[in-house]
Amino acid sequence: MSRTIEIPERSGTAFRLRKGEMLTVIDPRGEQVADLLAFNAGDVGEVISSGRTLDYAGRIYLTTGDKLYSNRSTVMLEIVEDTVGRHDFLLTPCSYDTFHHFYPRLEPHRGCFGNLAEALAPYGVIPDQIPIAFNCFMNVPVDGETGRLKVLPPISKAGDHISFRAAIDLIIGLTACSAPDSNGGSFKPIHYRIDSGK
Amino acid sequence: MSRTIEIPERSGTAFRLRKGEMLTVIDPRGEQVADLLAFNAGDVGEVISSGRTLDYAGRIYLTTGDKLYSNRSTVMLEIVEDTVGRHDFLLTPCSYDTFHHFYPRLEPHRGCFGNLAEALAPYGVIPDQIPIAFNCFMNVPVDGETGRLKVLPPISKAGDHISFRAAIDLIIGLTACSAPDSNGGSFKPIHYRIDSGK
Repeated sequence: MSRTIEIPERSGTAFRLRKGEMLTVIDPRGEQVADLLAFNAGDVGEVISSGRTLDYAGRIYLTTGDKLYSNRSTVMLEIVEDTVGRHDFLLTPCSYDTFHHFYPRLEPHRGCFGNLAEALAPYGVIPDQIPIAFNCFMNVPVDGETGRLKVLPPISKAGDHISFRAAIDLIIGLTACSAPDSNGGSFKPIHYRIDSGK
Repeated sequence: MSRTIEIPERSGTAFRLRKGEMLTVIDPRGEQVADLLAFNAGDVGEVISSGRTLDYAGRIYLTTGDKLYSNRSTVMLEIVEDTVGRHDFLLTPCSYDTFHHFYPRLEPHRGCFGNLAEALAPYGVIPDQIPIAFNCFMNVPVDGETGRLKVLPPISKAGDHISFRAAIDLIIGLTACSAPDSNGGSFKPIHYRIDSGK
């Protein structure tokens, strides 16, 4: 078993995940979101695509067995374990601008967008390339009649996790989300672990 | 009144839309989808963003009064008229790969993705920059409980339309959609018109 790494509250990181390796994202305290991005390690123009993935899945909520596709229709990740079953794949990472929009009375934060942009810059990713993230543990129910969506506290409990297997060599961006509404009003760390393929 | 331009079935085009101008997308025969993309005319790295727009709107179904935002949180377009009230903003334009996936027995088509890529190339847009489109008239109901989505025939009738006002100078990509399921099984043209701002 590999070691567990902590992403401190309201921050982000980026790292390589090799084909066949398994990434486990853990919510150590419960009710904490982690935004996840994936880029083709050999060509960061290829990136995780919500629109392509939801089209192929025929569902907006994804869980064990579902595959996450790139903008070029390549399978990037497969969800191989999921103790929560509720994640979001509709919304972009919060930025300075979205903070200003949603929390006009709070000091704006660069959000997961800013944290991802900084963490991914050394890999050649520019901010405009940051798309909709796979938002682990984010709880965004949609009303099928009106289309209205709500950002509610995650249903994840302490120790809950989701595991992905890499289908190709990837650069991963991963955060501990910074937006009050997404995390039940408090900011907590996220843990992750990389295990070699079986 | 400006002249109406036809986009032939299963094709696409691109054009400039200046700040203040109004773009009207018309379904001349009914049950025909048109994928719409918008790029900042001064910097095509700035592009229409489903994730940002849905976040700000708090809804997945958009109509009159809603604004379409860019990946940099800029308002690009405002919907100023809509005789249909059902459009999709979850799915990426169909490509050669998605055709192969969904219609393995049909001759693959490059789809709206290929049509948009060709039409937008002269403006400096590369294929990897093509995100989720605002799919005019596309009817994708979502089951709020299961998250399951369906691609149903559009509810648009002959002559129905949706009008957008440009908030900044834009490059627009627009198609007559090529996918059987999205268009009730047949392929029809799309009409559009540009009117100067009032």
